[in-house]
Amino acid sequence: MTLRFGLLGAGRIGKVHARAISADAGAKLVAVADAMAPVAKAISDQYGCEVRTIEAILAAKDIDAVVICTPTDTHADLIEKFAKAGKAIFCEKPIDLSLDRVKACLKVVRDTKAVLMVGFNRRFDPHFAAVKAAITAGTLGKIEMITITSRDPGAPPLDYIARSGGIFRDMTIHDFDMARFLLGEEVSEVSAMAAVLVDPAIGKAGDSDSVQVMLKTATGKMCLISNSRRATYGYDQRIEVHGSLGAATADNQRPVMIEVATKAGYTRPPLHDFFMTRYTEAYAAEIAGFIAAVSGKAKATPTGEDGLSALALAEAALKSVAEGRTVKMSEII
Amino acid sequence: MTLRFGLLGAGRIGKVHARAISADAGAKLVAVADAMAPVAKAISDQYGCEVRTIEAILAAKDIDAVVICTPTDTHADLIEKFAKAGKAIFCEKPIDLSLDRVKACLKVVRDTKAVLMVGFNRRFDPHFAAVKAAITAGTLGKIEMITITSRDPGAPPLDYIARSGGIFRDMTIHDFDMARFLLGEEVSEVSAMAAVLVDPAIGKAGDSDSVQVMLKTATGKMCLISNSRRATYGYDQRIEVHGSLGAATADNQRPVMIEVATKAGYTRPPLHDFFMTRYTEAYAAEIAGFIAAVSGKAKATPTGEDGLSALALAEAALKSVAEGRTVKMSEII
Amino acid sequence: MTLRFGLLGAGRIGKVHARAISADAGAKLVAVADAMAPVAKAISDQYGCEVRTIEAILAAKDIDAVVICTPTDTHADLIEKFAKAGKAIFCEKPIDLSLDRVKACLKVVRDTKAVLMVGFNRRFDPHFAAVKAAITAGTLGKIEMITITSRDPGAPPLDYIARSGGIFRDMTIHDFDMARFLLGEEVSEVSAMAAVLVDPAIGKAGDSDSVQVMLKTATGKMCLISNSRRATYGYDQRIEVHGSLGAATADNQRPVMIEVATKAGYTRPPLHDFFMTRYTEAYAAEIAGFIAAVSGKAKATPTGEDGLSALALAEAALKSVAEGRTVKMSEII
Amino acid sequence: MTLRFGLLGAGRIGKVHARAISADAGAKLVAVADAMAPVAKAISDQYGCEVRTIEAILAAKDIDAVVICTPTDTHADLIEKFAKAGKAIFCEKPIDLSLDRVKACLKVVRDTKAVLMVGFNRRFDPHFAAVKAAITAGTLGKIEMITITSRDPGAPPLDYIARSGGIFRDMTIHDFDMARFLLGEEVSEVSAMAAVLVDPAIGKAGDSDSVQVMLKTATGKMCLISNSRRATYGYDQRIEVHGSLGAATADNQRPVMIEVATKAGYTRPPLHDFFMTRYTEAYAAEIAGFIAAVSGKAKATPTGEDGLSALALAEAALKSVAEGRTVKMSEII
Repeated sequence: MTLRFGLLGAGRIGKVHARAISADAGAKLVAVADAMAPVAKAISDQYGCEVRTIEAILAAKDIDAVVICTPTDTHADLIEKFAKAGKAIFCEKPIDLSLDRVKACLKVVRDTKAVLMVGFNRRFDPHFAAVKAAITAGTLGKIEMITITSRDPGAPPLDYIARSGGIFRDMTIHDFDMARFLLGEEVSEVSAMAAVLVDPAIGKAGDSDSVQVMLKTATGKMCLISNSRRATYGYDQRIEVHGSLGAATADNQRPVMIEVATKAGYTRPPLHDFFMTRYTEAYAAEIAGFIAAVSGKAKATPTGEDGLSALALAEAALKSVAEGRTVKMSEII
Repeated sequence: MTLRFGLLGAGRIGKVHARAISADAGAKLVAVADAMAPVAKAISDQYGCEVRTIEAILAAKDIDAVVICTPTDTHADLIEKFAKAGKAIFCEKPIDLSLDRVKACLKVVRDTKAVLMVGFNRRFDPHFAAVKAAITAGTLGKIEMITITSRDPGAPPLDYIARSGGIFRDMTIHDFDMARFLLGEEVSEVSAMAAVLVDPAIGKAGDSDSVQVMLKTATGKMCLISNSRRATYGYDQRIEVHGSLGAATADNQRPVMIEVATKAGYTRPPLHDFFMTRYTEAYAAEIAGFIAAVSGKAKATPTGEDGLSALALAEAALKSVAEGRTVKMSEII
Repeated sequence: MTLRFGLLGAGRIGKVHARAISADAGAKLVAVADAMAPVAKAISDQYGCEVRTIEAILAAKDIDAVVICTPTDTHADLIEKFAKAGKAIFCEKPIDLSLDRVKACLKVVRDTKAVLMVGFNRRFDPHFAAVKAAITAGTLGKIEMITITSRDPGAPPLDYIARSGGIFRDMTIHDFDMARFLLGEEVSEVSAMAAVLVDPAIGKAGDSDSVQVMLKTATGKMCLISNSRRATYGYDQRIEVHGSLGAATADNQRPVMIEVATKAGYTRPPLHDFFMTRYTEAYAAEIAGFIAAVSGKAKATPTGEDGLSALALAEAALKSVAEGRTVKMSEII
Repeated sequence: MTLRFGLLGAGRIGKVHARAISADAGAKLVAVADAMAPVAKAISDQYGCEVRTIEAILAAKDIDAVVICTPTDTHADLIEKFAKAGKAIFCEKPIDLSLDRVKACLKVVRDTKAVLMVGFNRRFDPHFAAVKAAITAGTLGKIEMITITSRDPGAPPLDYIARSGGIFRDMTIHDFDMARFLLGEEVSEVSAMAAVLVDPAIGKAGDSDSVQVMLKTATGKMCLISNSRRATYGYDQRIEVHGSLGAATADNQRPVMIEVATKAGYTRPPLHDFFMTRYTEAYAAEIAGFIAAVSGKAKATPTGEDGLSALALAEAALKSVAEGRTVKMSEII
């Protein structure tokens, strides 16, 4: 059986998913919708699918699943509509910037028993997945302390930042999800610090560009997160997990494995400078995971609840910064 | 303009090229030919191309270029036929196991002015290409000494070995081409040693499974090659280039960049265990390079003459082992 | 001129300093004092110095400087006595577990204009010193975020822990000093989390064995610290400094630079398993730094005030854990 | 019992051994002899030993062992004299540049049953020793192929080169010894290539500055050696051993384990730039090994015969270059 897809939103990330769906022998991209006609047409031309309206896709008999890549403020509404229409749903993160709106949306998903998967692509990165596998295999023993380092090559445009919900909801949210994924139990306490070190304009926009966070679970497992909107040397994405029997490290993926030695020393090239290049394999594995889930071969994960939990951690971090104290997750959710 | 391809031979490597052609916006796979009907049909089903005979492809008006992935002993004949038919030709290495046959074939190519590119895929590997780029940029100064290490995870089947022309023509030939590519001038002297260390059956078949080679150019540049048909830790492919201003190293590409530390030490996973996984990016770049060459955007390289030169180095290595002496290339070609 | 030394306390760390003094052409170990006669005699036999009482060393005309390696609760008294006696003083950390006692002691040091250097040996480690040099050279630009990872191979004996003042004052204090050393400005805010994950007996003794700390300066520079009393893979000591122009990492020093590849993967041996082996070069450079300072060739640093500041950060971390909030350093000191 | 040493020759390497002997609790440096009085006096002043003539040391009742660090052309004579005098002998490599002279000298050593150890310090390097240990432990299985890379930061003075016996006897000889040490069986065939790539003056002096060598044992084990008199990035010393079950690599020892990342990439500092800095630990372990051997706690190894075998390999390499052929060791020795 071939899964028939509708793609909602054909911007940067929509294109990534269009390619992944088309390359998958078990899937077929049937239709694309985008507010901008030329954008939709480009996808249509390249992959031979139809251009339709969102409403047409909603009503379509020949579509089993949708991939939602529209702007964030449309996500929750679209999830609800397509859940009610009986389509399987893959939605880019976040579901919404409001915890209450997300909760309401997830209630609809539960009530309709819709399949919903949220786009935390990093869980599917082969390097991070290998760390998770080492944990699952028991090689590290009982997990005790995690350090997640995540730095962007540069800050996004200010207008993006203005709509992003702030660095905790936009950037750290990936690390919050990764922390939950690796800790294997819920975070109970959050403490965060934030600063504007990269660009004063980000501060004027009410956001921070450099943050650090501490997490702790009820059993005492801990996690550190370090984020910056700037890294001259590329897109820096590393994870360390320390346990009772050992530790696992995922180092940065390197575009080329060369090193040049001169009298100045031994130099390796910088890292990838773009998240799409860095996470090429993760995006492919992610959509394959969704296809497997809709086909009933796997669980749809990360779930909507995972999306909610990561967003709640972002809320807690914001509150911690604002109030200068450790925030209990029971205060948030 | 879209380049229209015929694929001759749809075995393991043929499939790789079929996928690469189909994924390229500037190319279209029009037809496939294979001695075994189900093999051809599988490609036809997956990529929507026709199944034809080689003769039909030769005569086809709707085909501009062919990719030759048939058995080695058919390569030279097919190159000549398609050169005369005015098709552009990508041929898997080697052109033939006989130097004289290759020379005769290349004469036809020259006379017909056909575009011919030979499949030394490693030149297109991003890691090795980055070493070449460092040389070209002058970062290493004048090139002086190269070390190429190439080990297979395991020996091929004995019947493959029997038809392969021996380890120098089958395996070291890639390193010979890489040596020429990086040295930037012709090898003038060859000395080689060979042994059977992995499997006595390989020795009984008249071949070796472990060889080392020294090369030297007229200006004194030197190269070492170390080959084994066995490496428990995976497909080991490394290059070092030492020059007057510095050195460049291409380390092994790693499937995952994780390291697990326990009381036993720090362990990284083994390497890729298959050349197709290791050289995925190289194969894609190679066929893109051919498409660019046929489209007139680049030179078709490696050329038939490159194929001839690498084969001649294999001949010289064999002669060196047999006669226990350094062989001058002027004796061979 | 040769500096003449008295050694107070000839236990584990005292022996390290005795060796370093004896090996330095500009210094001479004149006398040793230890509460246990055989311990003092062993040093006397090996290095040809006299055994004396602390009082005799205090009164001695032939001694210019002392190295204090006695139990922590004697440090402040000894510093005061020897400061008044006009001797130069190197004192192992900490000066005292009480901030007030340290302050009173440092007043005596200031009033007597005594030379005092405190034993934060890690500042002298060649790897960490190279990170500091990269900062000083401006290679990293403006420092923004630091991550310090410090894990012991195993927990010390419970009776040691009982007298240690707790993990923040005993273990993290080195990282607090390193943070101040690298940040280049004073910490203004501290948040910490602590847990008992390694050994419940440590918890029963009122201490923690796994802690994480966030620091922030007035200008927004930030630092993360991760500590564990257990690491199966050895003595794990790493630092990362991220700045506006780049980042510097000090990786673990390795006893041997070998890697063994088998079908199980690529394995490097574990780290050093003991701080004295790990910091051999640091201890030698530290005492050389003290000799240089007493000889007037360099500043005596880290100073007593550095010792006080690190201890104050430990106090703040304890308070943060107890009160579940970010503590301002202005509350502490 | 304390071993009492006489040091013959107190130049650069003599000083290294003087320090090592003085630091060893089981040894005492009793006397030093050097043709240049101030050189001998400096050692005498620093370590409190006497200055004597070689003849006085030869006749001395209070000396058990000598360390020969005089010019190469005096080694064989001194070994013979001290062997006959019943002293244990550590002699810097080489024993002599003439195979016949070495053979005659070793006959005297055998006849007098003298303890003789030859200064191939690299066997005692902790990194290379760890590779040997991996071999001995069987982790690598049956050894098959070795690659030794050895590059000096720069060429020695021309007058040194003129007296050195040429690069194979002076520089490659260390790699020949290492090859024998790691192969665990005798080399039976040698092929070499040599060039002048670094400095034409070296060529005019009749020597080469860049050489590569292939070795093979009777059972087919193989080894590659790559030498250059120039490496801009420091003193490059690496070894790879490939066996039936796996491979071991000794990478370069690094002065500092830091890496600095900027927009230009990730840069580690250059290597050590001097063999004495690089091999500090090896020299200390070497003299400790000699003391252990004289004390009867260990075998004196590398032996005089090891010195002879390495020199014979250098002869074979020279002959191979001269005659353009693979040379059998049975032709040499």
